[in-house]
Formats: sequence, structure tokens, C-alpha cells
Amino acid sequence: MSFGTDVVLYDKDGHRCVAFSNLVRGDDGVQANQFLIQDGGESAVLDPGGALLYNPLVLALGKHMKPHEMRWVLCTHQDPDIIGSVDKWLLYTEGTIVCSQLWGRFIPHVVPGYMKNAGSDRYLLLPDTGGNVPLGRGYLRAVPGHFMHSVGNFGFYDPISRIFFSGDVGASLIDSSHPYVFVKDFNAHRPKMEGFHRRYMASNRVLRLWVSMVRRMDPLMIVPQHGLPMQGEAIPAFLDWLETLECGVDLLGPADYRWP
Amino acid sequence: MSFGTDVVLYDKDGHRCVAFSNLVRGDDGVQANQFLIQDGGESAVLDPGGALLYNPLVLALGKHMKPHEMRWVLCTHQDPDIIGSVDKWLLYTEGTIVCSQLWGRFIPHVVPGYMKNAGSDRYLLLPDTGGNVPLGRGYLRAVPGHFMHSVGNFGFYDPISRIFFSGDVGASLIDSSHPYVFVKDFNAHRPKMEGFHRRYMASNRVLRLWVSMVRRMDPLMIVPQHGLPMQGEAIPAFLDWLETLECGVDLLGPADYRWP
Repeated sequence: MSFGTDVVLYDKDGHRCVAFSNLVRGDDGVQANQFLIQDGGESAVLDPGGALLYNPLVLALGKHMKPHEMRWVLCTHQDPDIIGSVDKWLLYTEGTIVCSQLWGRFIPHVVPGYMKNAGSDRYLLLPDTGGNVPLGRGYLRAVPGHFMHSVGNFGFYDPISRIFFSGDVGASLIDSSHPYVFVKDFNAHRPKMEGFHRRYMASNRVLRLWVSMVRRMDPLMIVPQHGLPMQGEAIPAFLDWLETLECGVDLLGPADYRWP
Repeated sequence: MSFGTDVVLYDKDGHRCVAFSNLVRGDDGVQANQFLIQDGGESAVLDPGGALLYNPLVLALGKHMKPHEMRWVLCTHQDPDIIGSVDKWLLYTEGTIVCSQLWGRFIPHVVPGYMKNAGSDRYLLLPDTGGNVPLGRGYLRAVPGHFMHSVGNFGFYDPISRIFFSGDVGASLIDSSHPYVFVKDFNAHRPKMEGFHRRYMASNRVLRLWVSMVRRMDPLMIVPQHGLPMQGEAIPAFLDWLETLECGVDLLGPADYRWP
């Protein structure tokens, strides 16, 4: 695995997963990872971000793919750092946007009215249960992550590499200049996750459901949209911690909704 | 009150609240309301939307204000239909973006890296408790609405008009061609709200906290970002209904997080 501008997470028999971790420059935008998943000449980009990253990401993708190979623009949810540049992906690629059906009529608000090639036929809207998204000779599986944090949220599991792209779940806050390396010591890493998960995840109830699902999935890597990827011992340590975390509405009381 | 393209909700002694309800055209984007709040020569636009609405809204605003009067771009949360056009508001106005501190490093992902006049000094980031946003001779009050649906979400209360701009809470799904009139019979209106609130609001726990706060606030109007405004008897009927609604994570179980 190379740890340069783009990190190849998996590359075997025409199947490839690549992470871009350091395209955000300056302090205004939070560090974010974008991903390219390829199989049999078809490409999917995952959580490509907004205008801040559009050109940097296209330049970075150029090394790996040709324009006509773009089949899917996968979105874990509707946030600015996820799909703020949906207008450009619709206009400059032939890709189809994949997102929760909850956002099917919200994301088009980013697209100017004059773009006639940007209608509902350019979207694959996922039901709450998720499902398989075909890619090359196989598929990616969209996996529910609702209320973590977005109310309509998915992770994407790749059964060939056994990588679980978990979106905001497992995210850690690091600088864009931080090397993109696997978490070695989960307990030392945890402080970079704790505040975010406690405030942005909706409740422990949903964390427990998600952890139980991911244990059955048994991925080799958990790769979030912000911060560092996890593998090996870090995965059960992360799941054990997440399962017991109080968060979101669990921690709210009348003092948080004072009037006046 | 006129019920044309823009609806004047309040206009007295140099203080004015205007709603724009029918700027979304076609079926791709969900109907959404945008608002202009003015006092003493200063203007605030609330939830202006994305590229779909940028030009239509600017044209509609032209009847009411001059460019240099724009002081605030208020955002209830981070969604595409709320602030997808933040780049244009930063570039073409001198306004400051007001949003939850939770979105302070996410919204800038929509702004291209070359925009040097779009840094953190153009944002007023609200703490979770909210607070007063000065406007003209008075202020608007940012009121917590976290996890309804966004994890960092605010309503804006105007103490002069006693209008509560409630964002997604109280939203109803209507066509953009629907007349923008007050809800007359809440029970007849409720089906336009029910599915949205059940799926997008995070849990009954937070609904109860919010309802209790709004009862103490005692607004004359509750004006959501989607659908119709409420006043009079519709307000207690809406609050009574919302207080007992099971929603979001309350309704989730292991079957919703199946694997495989």
C-alpha cells in the first residue's frame, strides 16, 4: 500500500479501491476522504464533496480512470462535504447519483433549473433497507446507517475487498496533512472520534443496532469519510466502544431547550 | 396580506417579514419557502436554498431590498435546499452566514478554493443554545431544534412579529402551485405532515422538549420551510399532535439493520 496523495486500499484482478485523503486545503473545510471503487472497467466515486474539492478530485481521478468509465456517484448522505458539487457531476459525467430516497427531492436543489439533463433519471434512490449497486462483474452493498448522523444515511460494503466504507460512522478529526495510515492503538485514537460521535450520532439505540449489523458483516477494514481507516484489532475495539456510547438525544434535557 | 408570488406576513413600522413559496419549478426539487426579514434598513434572508433557487430568489428579493442591505444569510441547517448556494451569497453579497457551529467546517465545502473572500470571518456560528442575532433596531432569536431533523438545527423567532420560523418542524408537503394560505383545519392538514415527521425527526424525546419550549414562546404564527404556515387554533393542535408522535429511532429495530 502506498501512502502518497492517493492510497490504494485494494488492487487485485481488476478490482480496485483508492482513497484520497488530503485534497482539502486550508482550515475552513473539515478534512474529508473521497474514494474511487473500480471493477471490470466501471468506476464509482464515493462522497466526492462540494466545489472545494471538485477540481482537485477530478485531477486526482485522472490517474486512475477515463471519463466514460464513471457509472456511479455514491453518496452516504446529503451534506455539503458529501455531494455539494452534484451539479458538476451531473453535467460533466454520465454517472448516476446514488443516495437515500429521503434526499431524492432535496439534492436537486443544488442543480440550476436550466440543466435539462439532470432529472430524476440521473438518480438511483435507495430504500431504507439499502440494497446492491451493480459495478463491473459484481456489486457494492448499500447498508443502512440512518440517524448516524443523517436521517437517511448509508454505508457501502465491498464484498470483494471486504472494505466497509462507513461514511461518518467511525470518523475521526485529523488535519489534511496527517498521513493516511491505519489506526494502530484504538484507545489512543479514540479522543479524535469521541466529541463528534457523542454530538452528531442521534442515539445509543441506533448505535447498538448498527454495531450488531457490522459484527455480522465482519469487514476486514472500516474506512470512514473523515480521518483514519481501521483494520485488525481496532475494529472490535471501535465496535465495543461505539455500542456503549451515549449520544445525541440521549444527552438532551429541558436545559437544552430553554425559553426564553 | 397578499397571496401572490411573495406573501407579506408582517409589515409595520419599518419591520417586515416576507415569504416566497412558489419559486421551485418542476417536480425534481421539493417545494420550499424562503423568507426575507427586514428591520430599520437591514435585511436577513432565511434558508435561501441552492442553485435551483438562486436567481429566482434574487429577482424576487429585488422588489423589497437593495444589495447593500443584506446583513445575514440565516440557515436553519446544512441541507442542499437550505444553503446549497452559499458560494453565491458569499460572492455576490456582503452578508454573513449564520448557522450551527456543527456545520461551520462542512458548509465551506460548497465554496471553491479560489474564493478568498469566503473565510471564517463570513460566518456567525451559533452555539447549541442559540442566541440573539441583531437586525436593525432589534434582533432575531435562534432557537434550538437539534435532531429535527438535522443534528445541528435552529428555528428563528422574531419577537416583533411574534412569528416563529420553525425550519423543517411543522413542514408539510404541498405542490409549489398550492396557494400559500394558513392551515385552517389541522386534522385535515395533518396527513401532509405525518410521513415526513415520522421518518425525519429523530425521536419523540426531542419532540417533547421542543414542544414544551414552543409553548412557553407562545408565537402568533409557526411558519415552516416547507408547506403552509399555522396560526390560531392550528398551533396548539399541531403541538399536541407533535408531542405524542413516535418517530425516527423510536421506530427502528433489528429488522431495519439486517445483515446480509
